[in-house]
Amino acid sequence: MRDALIAAAFRLFLERGYEETTVDDIVALAGVGRRSFFRYFPSKEDVVFPDHERCLADMTAFLEASTDEDEPVRRVCDAARLVLRMYAEKPEFSVQRYRLTKRVPVLRAYELSVVWRYQRALAGYLRERFAGQRDATLRADVIAAAVVAAHNNALRAWLRSDGKGDAEAAVDHALRHVQAAFGATPAPPAGELPEDVVVVVARRETPLWRVVQELETALGRG
Amino acid sequence: MRDALIAAAFRLFLERGYEETTVDDIVALAGVGRRSFFRYFPSKEDVVFPDHERCLADMTAFLEASTDEDEPVRRVCDAARLVLRMYAEKPEFSVQRYRLTKRVPVLRAYELSVVWRYQRALAGYLRERFAGQRDATLRADVIAAAVVAAHNNALRAWLRSDGKGDAEAAVDHALRHVQAAFGATPAPPAGELPEDVVVVVARRETPLWRVVQELETALGRG
Repeated sequence: MRDALIAAAFRLFLERGYEETTVDDIVALAGVGRRSFFRYFPSKEDVVFPDHERCLADMTAFLEASTDEDEPVRRVCDAARLVLRMYAEKPEFSVQRYRLTKRVPVLRAYELSVVWRYQRALAGYLRERFAGQRDATLRADVIAAAVVAAHNNALRAWLRSDGKGDAEAAVDHALRHVQAAFGATPAPPAGELPEDVVVVVARRETPLWRVVQELETALGRG
Repeated sequence: MRDALIAAAFRLFLERGYEETTVDDIVALAGVGRRSFFRYFPSKEDVVFPDHERCLADMTAFLEASTDEDEPVRRVCDAARLVLRMYAEKPEFSVQRYRLTKRVPVLRAYELSVVWRYQRALAGYLRERFAGQRDATLRADVIAAAVVAAHNNALRAWLRSDGKGDAEAAVDHALRHVQAAFGATPAPPAGELPEDVVVVVARRETPLWRVVQELETALGRG
């Protein structure tokens, strides 16, 4: 029933426009009552983004299941990948929704609030992990924002290309960029010398990001 | 007249609540007609954030006035400082609004959309400056998000402290954090040897951010 409502809603949104479609139109096409609609969706906006609540719950559970062994920045990057997976599961639906959302201000506002909830979940986890460290909340908030921005940069490029291309590879590349700037290396596997050193030589006027890039390569994280 | 409307609106919002106050109540208290209200403010939300449009225009003008000599990350940090200045000009008003916004979902949504417009302005500028470079839009989006997150981390701490303490110093500290991660050094002044080198030696398991911190210190940007 839930899927039938989503399908009916999208058919009408695309045919008539979002604002022009009422909940009554949707339930009429789906052949169910108004009550059934509101059992699944608190509002008309929610039927456009039917999977975000589940994804937010999955993300929260994933972060809560972390241990102290998990490198925090890697963990929030992996948490962000859950969002990508939700979009990539239904490429055609995701692309349709992207086009619809771009045209309808109330949906853009809804999307911003969802993105903000993801970002807050990531930041909340990092704040806990960084507790007691210098600039803990600042670092947590900046990293969470960077992860979300990198994820969305890659996701939107994929949506703009009509879901063609490898979304996961693009998001991996984008998140590596953030991990390189903020993440720690995992502890070296047993047998590898912890005294291993890396030397970087840079001219003073070299942009810091270039030095970091070289550093990544040297550390095998490029 | 504009200031009188803002003052009347805030008096009522704080006394009765935001949802409970109508535009009619506001114009009655201010002693003007409805038309006057809507000449200044498109909606009731806008009277809560009366200075963002001007600040967005100032930010856009500031970024448009940039030259190729301006280091891009420093420039967006300076652009973000315009927002802080707007809040710091009227500390009492800013703190009242912060408390009000926290309680009213529609105002939080409005604030998210404003923050997003600032972030897009910064990202748009960086995308142009980085055009032709590797990962240009990715880097632009991530840096813009990091700048906004750092700025808001410091701004909100100041608002939570009821506007006590030095907001500018807090924002400077937060933005330095972002500049250190992403910014380039300015070209060395004439007379300084461009061949100047810096050597960093790090153990392989050292977190990358620690290496970057040392690097900053070595490069005199700590």
